[in-house]
Amino acid sequence: MQEHQQQILRAVTAVSKYPIRNFYFVACGGSLAVLMPGQYLIEQETEFPAFAYSSAEFTQRNPKALGPGSVVILCSTSGNTPETVAAAKFAREKGALTIGFSHLVDSPLWQEAEYRIHYSTGDEAEVNEYSNALLYRLLFAILDELQPDPKYKKMIYGILEVYPRNLKQTLEKYKEWAEDLGKAWKREPIIYTMSSGITYPVAYSFAICILMEMQWIHSQALHSGEFFHGPFEITDFDVPMIILKNIENDGRLEARAIAFTQKFSDKITVVDTSEFCYDGIEENLKKYFAPLIAAPVLRLFATELAEQRGHPLSVRRYMWKMKY
Amino acid sequence: MQEHQQQILRAVTAVSKYPIRNFYFVACGGSLAVLMPGQYLIEQETEFPAFAYSSAEFTQRNPKALGPGSVVILCSTSGNTPETVAAAKFAREKGALTIGFSHLVDSPLWQEAEYRIHYSTGDEAEVNEYSNALLYRLLFAILDELQPDPKYKKMIYGILEVYPRNLKQTLEKYKEWAEDLGKAWKREPIIYTMSSGITYPVAYSFAICILMEMQWIHSQALHSGEFFHGPFEITDFDVPMIILKNIENDGRLEARAIAFTQKFSDKITVVDTSEFCYDGIEENLKKYFAPLIAAPVLRLFATELAEQRGHPLSVRRYMWKMKY
Repeated sequence: MQEHQQQILRAVTAVSKYPIRNFYFVACGGSLAVLMPGQYLIEQETEFPAFAYSSAEFTQRNPKALGPGSVVILCSTSGNTPETVAAAKFAREKGALTIGFSHLVDSPLWQEAEYRIHYSTGDEAEVNEYSNALLYRLLFAILDELQPDPKYKKMIYGILEVYPRNLKQTLEKYKEWAEDLGKAWKREPIIYTMSSGITYPVAYSFAICILMEMQWIHSQALHSGEFFHGPFEITDFDVPMIILKNIENDGRLEARAIAFTQKFSDKITVVDTSEFCYDGIEENLKKYFAPLIAAPVLRLFATELAEQRGHPLSVRRYMWKMKY
Repeated sequence: MQEHQQQILRAVTAVSKYPIRNFYFVACGGSLAVLMPGQYLIEQETEFPAFAYSSAEFTQRNPKALGPGSVVILCSTSGNTPETVAAAKFAREKGALTIGFSHLVDSPLWQEAEYRIHYSTGDEAEVNEYSNALLYRLLFAILDELQPDPKYKKMIYGILEVYPRNLKQTLEKYKEWAEDLGKAWKREPIIYTMSSGITYPVAYSFAICILMEMQWIHSQALHSGEFFHGPFEITDFDVPMIILKNIENDGRLEARAIAFTQKFSDKITVVDTSEFCYDGIEENLKKYFAPLIAAPVLRLFATELAEQRGHPLSVRRYMWKMKY
């Protein structure tokens, strides 16, 4: 705990003295999905422009506004993702302030980023030391320096003290759902996910990193707001969708998609993030916790699905097995 | 022609006198894909923050930086897309300058937006009066007011005088490809698309509006930079992908995906946007024309596919047929 806290403090001190012009959140795949709620949060709480880009897209685009005054936050578990390491180097050469999140200390990303924050992974670790929780701890601390507000301190307290218990309780609640769904959908060749806003990244990550990568199941993370402008025409009685109902905006976008798809498909499952456990969390802060809880809830289903299919989540056919 | 030009001029005059703080590009589905290269262009050519959002996501997010100083550009062919009309109203109430693109004059979007630009659609219309071409004509004219540069005038000239011919020639070149592919892939239940940067929106639109909406074929627009961080594990000998090779960055991201997928799938087709016809276009402006040509090239394939499958592109099962 102490180590994370010191690393965060160093980054917060640097950022709070820095003439901030904009924020870029840069990573690949699942790590990008971890950072996306950070982009959302900055956009909600400040007038600073905030962008989230896949690492290679970031360097390829080379946005003209990137330079001194830019805060570039990067993430890679191994710290060895070539595109993310390159993005850190690129941003630093452009004069940006870089903060790298990495599980592996002294990794290439650790070398390239000016400020570095170590995070934990795996079932043994404390959930408030995972990348997504540490990102929030960093960002809410930055916000509290820039524009002090008791809610930011409450948010940090919430992550440290309340979130682990709420997560645990919520997971208990969804255990049976995961077991039933894992069995029911074991032979599905395609499973869509859907969400919007702050929980969209969870749907995105589940589609590309769990279903496609770890289960070789075709997928797409549909955006609930885009659904009726094209994708909904593939709705059919046998097309399964996991709809992650957003807590913001009363989940209005998802509610519309749920009402529609439940009429025409027999395979719609809804995970309503407003029904998660948020004990001790103020109403206006709940939304920030939704993705932190939603990802492990969906992961319960992934574990059951993998078990039912005899296809462990650790199996790959290309990743780590060859040069590509 | 005259009418478009006057509408553009009015908007350009207003924007060039406006204390611009940021740009938002807001629409749904295919219209959002039309606007996305605008976001890209502003990000490339200026330091103004530029964002592209699906209309409902835009109003749900309600970014704190939205307000006086925001230029909000919206698009809807019917001018009747409820989320886009609501977004125009929302942005205007927040004090933003709104510019609405609509095919239908006097549509609800036409009423809500402060400045309005009519665009043409269909095979009979001039291609430089389509929404994507008019968006460029607007944005390059704005740029030329804000930061005059001969290349912007060249770009506008290119759209007006050169692009229609280049498009026609390119389409000739891809005719046979489209016929062959339409036949070969007529029984495919899933077809992925892939691209990055300025041509990603074309891959996105083709996946959700053509394949899913008009052909009921499962799809996802993969991002070439994200591909190796999850999605590539679904690559298999019988998984078809259309890879739209970007002209920027020598198509490096796609080249890597092409090399990999061609090793493991027998169904990879590559549309290399650097091989399009760009006669009379300067090297550094070619990339802006790539999406304008790529969309009709892919559409050739859609037409053939629809013909082969006996499933006209005009057929819907839900859209326009019921309340949803």
